[in-house]
Amino acid sequence: MLKEGERIDDLQLKGLKLIQNPKWFCFGIDAVLLSDFASIKRKDSVVDLGTGTGIIPTLVYGKYEPREIIGVEIQEEVADMARRSVTLNNLEEVIKIYTGDIKDCFKDIGVNKYDVVLSNPPYKKNSSGILNPHDNKAISRHEILINLEELIYTASKLLKDGGRFYLIHRPERLANIIIGLEKHRFAPKRIRFVHPKVGKAPTMVLVEATRFGGDFLKVEEPLYVYNDDGTYSEEINRIYGRCQNEGENISCCNSNR
Amino acid sequence: MLKEGERIDDLQLKGLKLIQNPKWFCFGIDAVLLSDFASIKRKDSVVDLGTGTGIIPTLVYGKYEPREIIGVEIQEEVADMARRSVTLNNLEEVIKIYTGDIKDCFKDIGVNKYDVVLSNPPYKKNSSGILNPHDNKAISRHEILINLEELIYTASKLLKDGGRFYLIHRPERLANIIIGLEKHRFAPKRIRFVHPKVGKAPTMVLVEATRFGGDFLKVEEPLYVYNDDGTYSEEINRIYGRCQNEGENISCCNSNR
Repeated sequence: MLKEGERIDDLQLKGLKLIQNPKWFCFGIDAVLLSDFASIKRKDSVVDLGTGTGIIPTLVYGKYEPREIIGVEIQEEVADMARRSVTLNNLEEVIKIYTGDIKDCFKDIGVNKYDVVLSNPPYKKNSSGILNPHDNKAISRHEILINLEELIYTASKLLKDGGRFYLIHRPERLANIIIGLEKHRFAPKRIRFVHPKVGKAPTMVLVEATRFGGDFLKVEEPLYVYNDDGTYSEEINRIYGRCQNEGENISCCNSNR
Repeated sequence: MLKEGERIDDLQLKGLKLIQNPKWFCFGIDAVLLSDFASIKRKDSVVDLGTGTGIIPTLVYGKYEPREIIGVEIQEEVADMARRSVTLNNLEEVIKIYTGDIKDCFKDIGVNKYDVVLSNPPYKKNSSGILNPHDNKAISRHEILINLEELIYTASKLLKDGGRFYLIHRPERLANIIIGLEKHRFAPKRIRFVHPKVGKAPTMVLVEATRFGGDFLKVEEPLYVYNDDGTYSEEINRIYGRCQNEGENISCCNSNR
């Protein structure tokens, strides 16, 4: 089940586990925040674009139990790791890992077919051109294999009319995001900024957009990661399923969701 | 100097005063926040679109002393009130009030000529069509005589290449703002949300855009209006020129700007 350098991490959510290789790319808070920001129903079919080790499909299953989740990943060995996590969790019936390019995955997995698309894409523009196209970390962080507009285009192809697209990105790309969404007939519905703490500029932005949606946008209250004293905020503890007064005990908080 | 129902308000800024009629539209915190958010130099020429009683030109003069400020106002009697405030403040050499339509004011006051355009436009879409086009308050609040895209178009005509456009609006219009800016070749450079207090959704958004600007957008730290106890936040007191410990004494704070 495990290859050299890999380890199994307990996600502290319904016993779910994830295989990761610390030398490559381990999931961060972005995947956790995006999964929590999304609003997904049991009847939904879901696609995660650039799924990496499958963290988002696994968290989405743990939180919402939708009927189908497809993770799209271009890197063969990373997709293989994701597939082994699916097996480890006995979720082969729900989560499928598709190995291929986000840019044309809809030709294989279907057009106009899904209720929800999520993505935690590479954040950084590949302006330098000197990055190694075989470097796993670079592919996860820089727009080497896909850029923002190509990503939005694929989401527009996959989703049913009225389907929802959830994205986490950097605030400095907000204008690019909104213009790309408009170009591909999405209307942004909810935007939420993630701030390190009260009074600090945001470092991440969460966006929900609807395919052929109406014109009302809600900018939500800020999400603060840390308290002034450096401990996690109450909301972050809630998202991670930790109780304020119970340390690592999970289930009591999750049961309130 | 004063007509029936009018009063003179002291702006608590370098002795500047403003004539207002409480039955019409009195300036709000938006004008104060926009003037503070803007970055204006002494050599700049400035236009305020939809100037109303001239509050923004007067505050901008008080804060930055640019060489020229033109306030554009379509409502004759409101423009007249603004002009009398200019006279009251002995600023006829710096502030001119142009009576006319924002939509084509550049034909009279000049194309590609200004360093800065500001606007605190009507926030609400005129979707109902039942509003009275002669109602002063309605004209100030609803997009009856001008809509957002027409406003951005006029700003694009007035500004020099590289000129700055400052806008305050509602967060739910953010996507419309960004798409309108893109259409008229502006790049948003700074966005700042104004929240009633910590943890609340924003109720206003401040935007700086540059004509033919580059691609870097900064979403700034939130601006909170109130503390938890309902008193004004430290930043609002700074913007209004009030000292935390000195009540209404103004000058000591302003001297730090």
